[in-house]
Amino acid sequence: MWPRYFTSCRKVYRASQLVPLINSLLQPNYVCSNFTNLLSRRIHHENKIEKQQCKDVWNNFTYRSHTCGELRPRHIGQNVVLCGWVQYQRLSKFLLLRDAYGITQCVVKENENLSDIPLETVVKINGTVAMRPMKMSNSKMPTGQIEVIIEDLQVLNTVDKLPFNLRDYQKPKEQLRLQHRYIDLRFPDMQSNLRKRSQMLHSMRRYLVEDSGFIEVETPTLFCRTPGGAREFVVPTHHSGLFYSLVQSPQQFKQMLMVGGIDRYFQVARCYRDETTRSDRQPEFTQLDIELSFAKMDGVLTLIEQLLYHSLSQNIPRPPFKRMTYKYALENYGTDKPNMTYDLQFKNISHLLCDISTEPCFRAYALPYTTQLGKLTSKYKEIVREIAKKNSVKVVLNESIKKEFGDDFIYKTEINRDMSVIVCIGNNENTCLCLGEIREIIASLLQAKGLLETEVGLVPLWVVDFPLFLKSEKGLQTCHHPFTAPHPEDKHLLDREPLKVRSLAYDLVINGCEVGGGSVRVHDVELQKKLLKMLDIEPHSLTHFLNALKSGCPPHAGVALGIDRLVALACKADSIRDVIAFPKSHEGKDPLSGAPNIISEEDKQYYHLPS
Amino acid sequence: MWPRYFTSCRKVYRASQLVPLINSLLQPNYVCSNFTNLLSRRIHHENKIEKQQCKDVWNNFTYRSHTCGELRPRHIGQNVVLCGWVQYQRLSKFLLLRDAYGITQCVVKENENLSDIPLETVVKINGTVAMRPMKMSNSKMPTGQIEVIIEDLQVLNTVDKLPFNLRDYQKPKEQLRLQHRYIDLRFPDMQSNLRKRSQMLHSMRRYLVEDSGFIEVETPTLFCRTPGGAREFVVPTHHSGLFYSLVQSPQQFKQMLMVGGIDRYFQVARCYRDETTRSDRQPEFTQLDIELSFAKMDGVLTLIEQLLYHSLSQNIPRPPFKRMTYKYALENYGTDKPNMTYDLQFKNISHLLCDISTEPCFRAYALPYTTQLGKLTSKYKEIVREIAKKNSVKVVLNESIKKEFGDDFIYKTEINRDMSVIVCIGNNENTCLCLGEIREIIASLLQAKGLLETEVGLVPLWVVDFPLFLKSEKGLQTCHHPFTAPHPEDKHLLDREPLKVRSLAYDLVINGCEVGGGSVRVHDVELQKKLLKMLDIEPHSLTHFLNALKSGCPPHAGVALGIDRLVALACKADSIRDVIAFPKSHEGKDPLSGAPNIISEEDKQYYHLPS
Repeated sequence: MWPRYFTSCRKVYRASQLVPLINSLLQPNYVCSNFTNLLSRRIHHENKIEKQQCKDVWNNFTYRSHTCGELRPRHIGQNVVLCGWVQYQRLSKFLLLRDAYGITQCVVKENENLSDIPLETVVKINGTVAMRPMKMSNSKMPTGQIEVIIEDLQVLNTVDKLPFNLRDYQKPKEQLRLQHRYIDLRFPDMQSNLRKRSQMLHSMRRYLVEDSGFIEVETPTLFCRTPGGAREFVVPTHHSGLFYSLVQSPQQFKQMLMVGGIDRYFQVARCYRDETTRSDRQPEFTQLDIELSFAKMDGVLTLIEQLLYHSLSQNIPRPPFKRMTYKYALENYGTDKPNMTYDLQFKNISHLLCDISTEPCFRAYALPYTTQLGKLTSKYKEIVREIAKKNSVKVVLNESIKKEFGDDFIYKTEINRDMSVIVCIGNNENTCLCLGEIREIIASLLQAKGLLETEVGLVPLWVVDFPLFLKSEKGLQTCHHPFTAPHPEDKHLLDREPLKVRSLAYDLVINGCEVGGGSVRVHDVELQKKLLKMLDIEPHSLTHFLNALKSGCPPHAGVALGIDRLVALACKADSIRDVIAFPKSHEGKDPLSGAPNIISEEDKQYYHLPS
Repeated sequence: MWPRYFTSCRKVYRASQLVPLINSLLQPNYVCSNFTNLLSRRIHHENKIEKQQCKDVWNNFTYRSHTCGELRPRHIGQNVVLCGWVQYQRLSKFLLLRDAYGITQCVVKENENLSDIPLETVVKINGTVAMRPMKMSNSKMPTGQIEVIIEDLQVLNTVDKLPFNLRDYQKPKEQLRLQHRYIDLRFPDMQSNLRKRSQMLHSMRRYLVEDSGFIEVETPTLFCRTPGGAREFVVPTHHSGLFYSLVQSPQQFKQMLMVGGIDRYFQVARCYRDETTRSDRQPEFTQLDIELSFAKMDGVLTLIEQLLYHSLSQNIPRPPFKRMTYKYALENYGTDKPNMTYDLQFKNISHLLCDISTEPCFRAYALPYTTQLGKLTSKYKEIVREIAKKNSVKVVLNESIKKEFGDDFIYKTEINRDMSVIVCIGNNENTCLCLGEIREIIASLLQAKGLLETEVGLVPLWVVDFPLFLKSEKGLQTCHHPFTAPHPEDKHLLDREPLKVRSLAYDLVINGCEVGGGSVRVHDVELQKKLLKMLDIEPHSLTHFLNALKSGCPPHAGVALGIDRLVALACKADSIRDVIAFPKSHEGKDPLSGAPNIISEEDKQYYHLPS
């Protein structure tokens, strides 16, 4: 991967600088070690260098000569043109000019008065770069050593009173920010998040196209309904009674691309799900969709690990990532997406307590944690009780363990006697899920008191061997989607014990958040038909897809990563809304335009909609 | 731009090869000239090199060892694993295996019989590479010097009888191809088109992100209706009477990004227009959407020229591209998107014939062309008459010129006497458009006879100075869109003679096809309100947008390129459908699934649709 270094650091080595560079590398032995050195530094410095690299191109095609973040003492004496927003004025003499790249202090001439220019006015300044007087130099500001003496100031656009100030220390409520997103985007964190998002996606594309021979193919979003998934938006047409559906993912298309011999496909795809009644979901979202032919699970997992290491290198550990079966995750963390940034694992102790119940589903789990936390407050006891009730599970807190299970119980569990313990027992499959929820609460309490070592970066985990089916009200439902292949070792159970069949599905979990998933797909049309039948899905709506499977479909596997979540994690943003330029707010409402809106009578007639 | 060379040719210089490379560059003088040389070769060889570069990565993460296009005499003796489709069988002995990268001849062992494997079966072959016997070597096939002796053949998937054969010389009708697109994609031209599309978009992104400091921002597609544009699809929601509209372009969002200080934006954006009743349009299409702050028209035009030169370098001339005013284009070519691959221009001769009519709109134009074409056949005369009639214009063919206008007429026009001439005269603005249509017919006739020198590559042209308004039935309509800025020299005409006001809009025309357009935008809220009023557009639905303009909106300009058309031109495809993986066919119908379809009663109730 070394040549990338050259691209990344183009600022450092221009053609004209090559002679001294090559001279400095004259001794062959030195060359290699030095380049290896450069190489190893690449990954950690890529972001920093990427910024350098672009610095001199930000002004191309514009009428500014420099950005507001660019001027340094080496520019002193130069005539410059800056464009930006008035960030601040002081003493009618200093004007701070801001753009996306930084802030520059500009000095108003003696006899001029610019105090009537409101903040956030858009201006163009023609001036000369000067050294700031020594004591006025500001080391916290990248441009803090210089100032620009204004020769000419032109107001490019006036500004009305804004609904909120652009001060980081008095950030407005999110609702107001979203309603005026075009102002909110000027905050440094929004600028940084959107730029990081663009850079991450670009790195991913470079890895996939240049380093891995994938091609990006755009697939339609106006399609027919895919049975057995989330609710899909429908799009009425001029033809009465006929509707498109907005795709919830390019799943069918990417599998058909495999049939078509496009054997290494990806797409940064817009997907739609009508979950607008859930407040934390976006009706449209972005996923990095990948599929490849002649590959097994291991190939896909390695690909994604390399991809993420390439594009998130500072934040993610070196591959391979940890892997864990679905069963192990449930038995030890009480969830299929355990947060592995901290080490808090529970124990299956069912065998110790099997005399309590004769139910076949009886389970008991113990969660040990440091005694330093002390007793739970009554508020948290109440929360734990609620969780227990919801799951129909009995919870025994540390202080009641001896009373409930006897004095030597902890000894039998082989848990360190100095630890506190919470135990969940129950006659249903929720028992471990219940303790999983409690685990997260205990973790947050421990973290708040500094009693839990927690990784600050991203901690990825593969969860594999998901079940193929889950129980549904009517019979069976898929755990992932109906195109997931069963685990070859469990195929014999398909007819007799379908709920015991594992699938070749895998999920990527980062810091307890599911950021992606995929599977080896069914490529055999008969098996696919059988699975649809077991799931009670009418095959008619998938005729084209089933035809594709019998037209020479190669074995294939793939994955989809949720870009909004992944970027939010990488940016340490609280919400995916902070990494989306124009997100919808609660219930899918667009805070800017108020959409969804009423439409015209003419449109209603044209689309045969009730008026 | 030199460091890109290193990335492009990573195959050539790996870290371990650096010592001899550096040694060969020891003399400083040699270094520079050699690197300059490399540099200048970069652009023309990029595509070729790009291919080399990826060659060894196509097998990563899969269980094949090589692609079917990769084996050469240097692999002889190696054990290889190939996966692909059975392309052809011969004499029950030879089996041609095909994948996306080529075809390899495989040899069946003596005692085996594979003749019952149908064509297009998916197989995995384990074998040894051997030299073909001299006289069996095929120089037309990249793998033609070798063959693979099959040790083990595994059928990965069987195949039913296909609806058509994969033979280039008997290509099925388009309707059948689209209905089974998953098979059609295996044709070499579809493979090549999709790969070229991916590569072009990737080059564009690299230019924008790495060489020009742009960031890609994804904007919503579920939004409110934009007044004054094309018909937009509506998307019903669970809230009775409330609808999203699918955006016809990210226009409002990109302008709001400018207000938000994202000053160099682009997006490869999915756009929607309900023009499904027009047979040659796709309801969804892709545009490269670009906007930048503090830029004028010249900046945007230069940016796009550089961008296209970078990503289409073999096919497009070196910038700057030709520019022409809208008025000049109409007066000389009779269209606002003249095809400049050939030189066939007409003359305004209104002044010579102004005694014919006193109408203020009277116009006369003459189109000269080589006499070698001879007289038009009666079929073409009929076509010309139809065009004349449609436009209410009088057409005088070459043989009638003297009779109609007198013997010395040609002399007065200053057209070479050896040329044939067609003249259009009329009392309306269609006169030049009429001769423009005839120009295209004459051009195709001349081309068919080899009488017109025609450029084979792409010939780009900027058309500038479009009018701001066009006449509509009710009053005024926009020529581009309501956010286009008027030409500063014509602002004084806005109230008195709006139809004479030029705009700061520009179109990119390639080979007579409009592939993109853009404009300097209105950034002044009062001017924007005035224009909306003149266009009779209710400002209420644009409240958020008008608020943005008065919140500190920088001057900005942008452009949108139609990617489907641009790729079709670059691929020399007949139709944009040939560069789209899954296009809709006539009237927006999806040939695979039959969408748009009927939907369930439950969906109808949920979305308050008539049942």
